[in-house]
Amino acid sequence: MQTEKTEIRLGVVGLSWRGSFLLGELLGIPGVRPYAMCDLYADRAEGGADIAQRAGFERPPVFADYREMLEKVPLDAVLISCGWTAHLPVARAAMKAGVYVGMEVGGATSVQECFELVRLSEETGVPCMLLENCCYGRDEMAVLNMAKKGVFGEIVHCGCGYLHDLRDEICLGRENRHYRLDNYLCRNGENYPTHGIGPAAKLLGINRGNRFLSLVSFASKARGLQDWVKHRLPADHPLAGRTFNQGDVVTTLLRCANGETVQCTLSTCSPRPYSRAGLVQGTRAMWAEEGRQFHLDGKTPPHEREAFDPYRDEYEHPLWAEYRRLGVHEAGHDGMDYLCLSAFVESVKRGVQPPIDVYDTATWMAITALSEESIALGGAPVAFPDFTSGAWICREPAPESKYALDRVCEGLFQ
Amino acid sequence: MQTEKTEIRLGVVGLSWRGSFLLGELLGIPGVRPYAMCDLYADRAEGGADIAQRAGFERPPVFADYREMLEKVPLDAVLISCGWTAHLPVARAAMKAGVYVGMEVGGATSVQECFELVRLSEETGVPCMLLENCCYGRDEMAVLNMAKKGVFGEIVHCGCGYLHDLRDEICLGRENRHYRLDNYLCRNGENYPTHGIGPAAKLLGINRGNRFLSLVSFASKARGLQDWVKHRLPADHPLAGRTFNQGDVVTTLLRCANGETVQCTLSTCSPRPYSRAGLVQGTRAMWAEEGRQFHLDGKTPPHEREAFDPYRDEYEHPLWAEYRRLGVHEAGHDGMDYLCLSAFVESVKRGVQPPIDVYDTATWMAITALSEESIALGGAPVAFPDFTSGAWICREPAPESKYALDRVCEGLFQ
Repeated sequence: MQTEKTEIRLGVVGLSWRGSFLLGELLGIPGVRPYAMCDLYADRAEGGADIAQRAGFERPPVFADYREMLEKVPLDAVLISCGWTAHLPVARAAMKAGVYVGMEVGGATSVQECFELVRLSEETGVPCMLLENCCYGRDEMAVLNMAKKGVFGEIVHCGCGYLHDLRDEICLGRENRHYRLDNYLCRNGENYPTHGIGPAAKLLGINRGNRFLSLVSFASKARGLQDWVKHRLPADHPLAGRTFNQGDVVTTLLRCANGETVQCTLSTCSPRPYSRAGLVQGTRAMWAEEGRQFHLDGKTPPHEREAFDPYRDEYEHPLWAEYRRLGVHEAGHDGMDYLCLSAFVESVKRGVQPPIDVYDTATWMAITALSEESIALGGAPVAFPDFTSGAWICREPAPESKYALDRVCEGLFQ
Repeated sequence: MQTEKTEIRLGVVGLSWRGSFLLGELLGIPGVRPYAMCDLYADRAEGGADIAQRAGFERPPVFADYREMLEKVPLDAVLISCGWTAHLPVARAAMKAGVYVGMEVGGATSVQECFELVRLSEETGVPCMLLENCCYGRDEMAVLNMAKKGVFGEIVHCGCGYLHDLRDEICLGRENRHYRLDNYLCRNGENYPTHGIGPAAKLLGINRGNRFLSLVSFASKARGLQDWVKHRLPADHPLAGRTFNQGDVVTTLLRCANGETVQCTLSTCSPRPYSRAGLVQGTRAMWAEEGRQFHLDGKTPPHEREAFDPYRDEYEHPLWAEYRRLGVHEAGHDGMDYLCLSAFVESVKRGVQPPIDVYDTATWMAITALSEESIALGGAPVAFPDFTSGAWICREPAPESKYALDRVCEGLFQ
């Protein structure tokens, strides 16, 4: 059995605001050592080195080219937090170099590159974890706990999504050197599925006894960003009068092998409250994030709603109960970032598959490419690839993952 | 110009609980005279006659066959409140007899029968109104008023649905002589679209400058009813062990000619709170029924939600303001039944097209048949027929409808 590493030599690719934040969190986890910083922008790479130095480590070398970084610096793990379309090329290069991959969320541009990720992981034995923090959300984990305890009865339908007014972040992409802008100008699809789909997929046992069979996507017209540019930016701004290809609201429906349906909504171009639109409908109970509602058959008065919080407290996931006892790192999206990163670090230290593995990663990211295809085809259903090559039929949590159950990466397997 | 009728000779087809309730409400509207009661069940037909008699009218004749009723009794209008699949045959017969049709909600079994309804109305000049009470809901009308005043900016997406735990009503269909049961045993589709689609279609100007282009539907597995039967009915009940074809949750996405998308959800087989899941997303504001939320760009703090009620009060529809002043008939679904029936009666009295006309009726009801088709085809998009034969391009509120603006059937044209 592999000895557990006490130290992890970490490289970071992509040191924007988000990458820098994640680096800071990672350096707070025992054993993580910053070994290399990489960004196309020199100031950002140096900024990463500054963070490492300020945290008391030796100043790591900086790179503009991730291939050079992987060639010159011996690493155990890499955090990928660059623009969406670079995630998978960097991940492939890291795997080829034998470096454990932790990848910020985003979607894929093709099914092909998702398959390439899976094959490389299978061939090299190098794991890849999508750092889907929302799988570690307190509500999501309580709901997962309820599902495992049978509170919902048989689950028939889930809802999820990413509803976040990002108009300023998108439209100020040039000023902020943010990749979202170009994606919104050019593409049209469910470009950010994993915050919603991740927790839903874990709940439904996707890739472990269940799988997505097909999906359809409809995109509304694109109006919100153009309207924002018109009213908030100077008339001579480069975006003035530009049209965006990305529809304001993209709705995707997925069908599962076991008969469940999943609805996933993307709404990032409109004024609205933040939501991940979580919904679980079973034969015995319903949870809805909107309105923080719960309904338990036989207990809640028929047709009525109860507040979710008392149920959340009753079914608090053990991981969260322990986390709250130890002290929540609230800076990272109400604490879920820290749990997610801790699961990654633990998996790397132990040399085991992470709780969100390469099949999950490929499956969740593929939704973006499949959604673009369906929209391009007028809402036609597109077949969902089986990235496990049939292994989903009998796949159980791997033994090495079960080994981690008493530690932080347990939750998603329980 | 046609003289306004002071009296309406009314026939009723279908006198279940709902039909009887509507009859009672109608008899409370000045000028409505009960002339004939019809139901396949003699006790129900007689029950209708009892209601009429108790309300102080001469006891009307009763019939088992609507054709016989239409042949023997001179009528101005008919209320159709029988089982779903009989709505359109009865409506066609009434139109052929020159009798103004008011039809309870439900869905169609084919596009063909929707076209037949439209052609018969065009050829005979007899109007047909779907009695979609939810178009007269207080919230829905306030939101319509906001939309007309531009509060939402440009609307890009709407959500709606019918989420109502009907497990007992469906499963006790034999005992209660209710048509829903057989539909749930045999069919699989969005069988009750109009409560959600009606208000959304009015908001989006469907058939008046806009139209539905296509839809897709996904149905979840069917588990809720079987589970309910197993746990709530005796082991020797005829439904024990029966499977239902109707999926527990059916999600339908529609695309409009002007680029909006609409999501419509049917959830009637699961324990959950009642909701019509109303949602309007525009470039300047969002309304969501779930959680009774509102967000107004530039006023609501970014990413936050405000309570809807103060906005509802500020933008109260004039019809509802007047209705509240005069006294709301709360017995009929918080008052909206009375408004809807009043609009019907007024339209009949004046001999004008109703605010929900035959094109609306056909369009909204067709969703059921189209949804069944899409589900049968694995979620394939199906083309939405243009029941107006192109008239939607230039169609404005008809002059005779504008005439009614100061009265109860105004709202939906304003």
